[in-house]
Order: sequence, then structure tokens, then C-alpha cells
Amino acid sequence: MKRVYNFSAGPAVLPETVLKTAADEMLCYKNSGMSVMEMSHRSKDYGEIISQAEADLRTLLNIPNNYRVLFLQGGATTQFSMVPMNLFKNKVADFINTGAWSKKSIAEAKRYGEARVLASSEDKNFTYIPNLDNLKISDDADYVHIVQNNTIYGTRFTKLPDTKGKILVSDMSSNILSEPFNVEEFGLIFAGAQKNIGPAGTTIVIIREDLITDDFLEGTPLMLQYKIHNSKGSMYNTPPTYGIYICGLVFRHLLENGGVQAMYKLNLKKSNLLYNFLDASKMFSGTVNKADRSLMNVTFVASSEELNKKFISETLENGLVNLKGHRSVGGMRASIYNAMPYAGVEALVNFMKKFESENL
Amino acid sequence: MKRVYNFSAGPAVLPETVLKTAADEMLCYKNSGMSVMEMSHRSKDYGEIISQAEADLRTLLNIPNNYRVLFLQGGATTQFSMVPMNLFKNKVADFINTGAWSKKSIAEAKRYGEARVLASSEDKNFTYIPNLDNLKISDDADYVHIVQNNTIYGTRFTKLPDTKGKILVSDMSSNILSEPFNVEEFGLIFAGAQKNIGPAGTTIVIIREDLITDDFLEGTPLMLQYKIHNSKGSMYNTPPTYGIYICGLVFRHLLENGGVQAMYKLNLKKSNLLYNFLDASKMFSGTVNKADRSLMNVTFVASSEELNKKFISETLENGLVNLKGHRSVGGMRASIYNAMPYAGVEALVNFMKKFESENL
Repeated sequence: MKRVYNFSAGPAVLPETVLKTAADEMLCYKNSGMSVMEMSHRSKDYGEIISQAEADLRTLLNIPNNYRVLFLQGGATTQFSMVPMNLFKNKVADFINTGAWSKKSIAEAKRYGEARVLASSEDKNFTYIPNLDNLKISDDADYVHIVQNNTIYGTRFTKLPDTKGKILVSDMSSNILSEPFNVEEFGLIFAGAQKNIGPAGTTIVIIREDLITDDFLEGTPLMLQYKIHNSKGSMYNTPPTYGIYICGLVFRHLLENGGVQAMYKLNLKKSNLLYNFLDASKMFSGTVNKADRSLMNVTFVASSEELNKKFISETLENGLVNLKGHRSVGGMRASIYNAMPYAGVEALVNFMKKFESENL
Repeated sequence: MKRVYNFSAGPAVLPETVLKTAADEMLCYKNSGMSVMEMSHRSKDYGEIISQAEADLRTLLNIPNNYRVLFLQGGATTQFSMVPMNLFKNKVADFINTGAWSKKSIAEAKRYGEARVLASSEDKNFTYIPNLDNLKISDDADYVHIVQNNTIYGTRFTKLPDTKGKILVSDMSSNILSEPFNVEEFGLIFAGAQKNIGPAGTTIVIIREDLITDDFLEGTPLMLQYKIHNSKGSMYNTPPTYGIYICGLVFRHLLENGGVQAMYKLNLKKSNLLYNFLDASKMFSGTVNKADRSLMNVTFVASSEELNKKFISETLENGLVNLKGHRSVGGMRASIYNAMPYAGVEALVNFMKKFESENL
């Protein structure tokens, strides 16, 4: 059976070579005589798998020694609780509201303290990133929370807010590993794996060592304390072993293909191809502010709702799948994460050209 | 490379046919053109996978309609918090302490209320199940918590405590699907998948409908509320999609091979083979009270620490792996979950016979 080009926003396309390795090793990993799924997390083989995954991620993101990498569970949504429960001291957090995932994290933080919204793009259905100049960072803020790439709307922060020394927390679920960044500008980074890394069920947390303390809110469940996971190398209890193994294969694949810098180049090339076409098209147009366009999630519409529907239906028949936009935005969305090959975006643009010529 | 007989306590052996299907479908699930790992959890294909997994588990365990099945994350350890946070009303729970996992759940419950230990086998390093007659169930207990099979020590409850009408909560991480039981005797059952079901990172919760309420403790993180997961069919956020798919393959495999009743027969046959040998041996002996022996985890020792070491080392060279006992018990442990074939236990017993004749 032929593989399709899968533009899903997440869980999303994975590198074909990673899937081939996973298939080859499914019944027997190297000389172990067993699947990675069947391995004790305390075994030597598995110890090497998780250590190598961490080491490779550290290399890819140039993570300083005073930052810890944790492999957790529960997705970004669990982090919406875990961040305030562990970082709240004054019980105040500042947020920039750039969409549904900001709103969910704000709602959850409010259950534990105060969540102040410094800027929002809700007035225009989150089609832009708010102006970051002159943000009124709270003097007593424990941290400032941003969602760096907004999967649903197709926007991204192209610069970071000046937090005036406050800890910057970033939800990088849909942009981690897509472009270079300086880890030291952040106190805490989290990302669900299922968009740009690996399978759903693994969450990556990169946290500055000094933020891991015993001083979490009373009643913070054991599994929601960064400290316990850090003290046991992400193995306080059984981690999502197979998911971490797949993440490790992706990290290795990225390293062998030029790392984040090479991905960034490719992501610019892929997104430019699509955005340039959208800007020139008489039928299709992008839906967000040009300066804030995401490299990962490209949102667009055709000139009528009828054409949107026809387009989605015809792409499906042509091996271009999951192009329907999120229900809160409508239209189309092409998620073109690291693992989406250039040829996939080319195929999409070629199809759009054909569709436009046939339907204009 | 030849597969070994893997006696790991968890993550543990999976049915070879399940792994073969997973390998075959890794690059392309049926006609989808993609891996299950790459599928949107909101897609039609994935919807069918998770629905079928639930339906098959319901058939296997004969789960009544007024019980809900949830596919969660975070392992049994997360349930140690989630159970009291959601079930505490009087903030009192009764426990039967049968080992490390009891103790961890007791410690966590104590952070949210009172945890009363009704009976314990700690005096003899948990080598037996305490007498369950005349338990002093607390009048104000919100529930009674047991760990039905004790992976580390190799004991199991052969009957259930009379809870005098109180809700019975059972940690079935290492015995679920190994023998028939009546779901209606329990209010809540939880199990990490990685012992007798599927890969680490998926937790199964079976909960009586009326126990799912808004009346959880203040500050219970969103992802630790049963209600939110139940209201969204385990898809409030992205579930561990691939793990659930593998669980589903295991459920299907069990159904095709006679279900839980057939597994129980096989498990009795496997464990009897091993226990009967231990009872007849002049070198090896079982470490727990005979009446309380586990069908899943068989703990034993040789007649000296030196022989234990020699045995573990030689089994390893002979394709019988992960037989070392837990550090808190020592000696050996053979975990013989559903997926361990009879031939694996035979190979182990034959090797033990040979070892005994060579070393006695």
C-alpha cells in the first residue's frame, strides 16, 4: 500500500526511515532477543536507549548543563497544571493569549492563583501575534507563559517577549526542533511529542535546574512534581518506554541530516513554497498576518466555502490527507512538520495550481 | 536474531503475533497510507481502533454497562493520587498492605486525608496475604484499596475482602486478564498496561459510572479528574494512541484464543509446572506462603546466594532472561504473564533440573 502525504496537525507524519527501523526492530532490538516494548526500563539496553535519546536531544538543541531534560507523560495539558503547581511562589503568572492552548493553560493556572493576560489576539480570532513591545510584566509574576507556535491558527512568535528578568515558560509542542533557539532564554520548555518529535504519550520538558525544588504547592500529586522525575532520571515509575525509543530514533535521524539548522532551512523552503503560492493565487489565500506566519502549520482558505469543501474532498482522493482546518478556524490547514518531505509540499502546491485552473 | 524467553516483571513479554502485526502495519495501517503513530486521534481510522479496543476489553472482562473504561497515562502511580483526589468525601481510605505498591499508594493517600491500614504482611517481608476475616472496615471509609497481585513478592489475593458495602478499589496492574473475575465486585480497577496488556505509558481504568462526579478535591489537576476523561471518551487531550493500538491488538489476540478463561487455564498450567518443580526440588524453593502464590510472578531461591548468582548468570547465557529477583527480595523471580508461552516455562524448568543435577 502506498503511503500518503499526511498533513495532520498531530499526531503527525514521522520520518519514513524511523518507521522502517522501528518495524525492523519490532521483534528483536539489536542483540536483545526482544522488542523495545518488552524491555524492562531498568535494563542495560533500555538505559542506553533513554540516555542516548537525551544526549542526542541535548546536542540538537545545544542544551546547557544546568538544564535538565525530562521524559514525562500526559501531554502539554498536564504541564498546564504542573507548571503553576511547581513554579507558583507568589501565585501569579503572566500570559500572552495567542489561542486555544493559551486559554486552556490560563484557565488551569487560575485554579491555583492569578493568571494575568498581558496581551491577546483574541479580537481577531488569533490571526496574529500581539505586539510584544512595552508588555506590563507583573512585578510579582512567577513566570511569563507563551505558546510559541499556534497549531490551530498558524501563527508563530518570531521574537521573544522581554520578560524583564522573569522566567519565560514556552509551550513548544508544535515548533520544537523546527528552528534554532537559545535554551538559555527560557526557564522551562515543554512539548508534547506527537507533532514534531514522536508518538503521542511522551512529553518533553526542558527545565532550568534551579527551578526544580521541593517548594511546590501543597497537594501537588507526586507524579506532577518535577523533582521526583528529575531525581530518578525520568524513571520514578515506568516511563513511556517505546515512545521515548521512537523519539530517540527521530533525534538520531535529525542529527544524521544536519540537525536543527538543516531542518530550519528545509522548513523555510517548504513554507515559502506554500506561502508564495498562496500570495500569488487568485483563489487561495493565507488566513494570518504575514509577519506572524508559522513554519509548521499553514492555514488558508479558498474563495468560497463550497470550494473549500471541494478542495478537501479532492485532495483526499489524491493522497494528500488531513488538510481540513480546525473547526474553530475553518478552511484548510497544512501541517508541514520536520518529517513532511519537500516533495509533499510540492505535491500539495501542484495540486492547488491544478485545482485553481480547473475551478476559477 | 533469535528471540529469548523474557521473564521480565514489566515492561514484559508481548504475544509474538501482536508484534508481527505491529511490524507489518508500521508503515501503513490497512488502507490509511500511514502508521497508527501518525494518525490524528480524531480520525475515523483511529476512532475505530480505540472503540474496538474498548469493546474487546468489555467482552473479555464482561464489563457491565454501568462501568466506564478509560485509557489514561501516568501508570498506576498516577492512580495513587487520582483515586483519593476523586473518591475522597470523608477523606478516609482503608488499605490492606501487601507490599511496596500498597505502601506507595498509602503514602500518597495520606497527603490528602487519612489512610488506615487494616491488615499488613510487612512483618514477614510481604511473603503472604494477611487474613481477610474480621477486617475492621472503617464506618467512614470512602473506599478499601488492595493490590491484588504483588509483582515484587509473588503473592496474590485468592479471595476478596468483605468491604461491608464500601467501594473496593483494586490495583490489578500485574494480574488483569490473567483469571476471570466479576467486575461488579469492584468500584474502581486500575492497571498499568506494561505487565499483562501492552506497552508502558497506557493505564486502563475501569470505574463504576456513579463514582465519576464533579466532587473531587479542590485543586485536583484537570488531567487527574476522571470526569474530564470520561466526558470525552479518553480523548480530552491526545491519548497515547499507539499504546492503545497495541493494547487493542492484545485484546483481539486474547479473544481469538479463548479469552480470559483460556488464559486462566494456561496460567494455572504454567504456574503449576513451576511450583510443582519447586516443591519437589532439593535445591530450589518458593519464597511465599503456598496458599497465596501468584500465577503471574513466581519467586524462588536456590540453596545459597552463590547458587542464585550462578543460576541467574547461566540462564542468561541460555536465552532465559530477566530472572533476577527484585532487590528488596533477592533470589529469582519468573514473571510468566499471559504472553509467556508454556514452552518458555518448560524451558525454564528443564534448565533448573539440569542446573540442579550439575550443582547439587
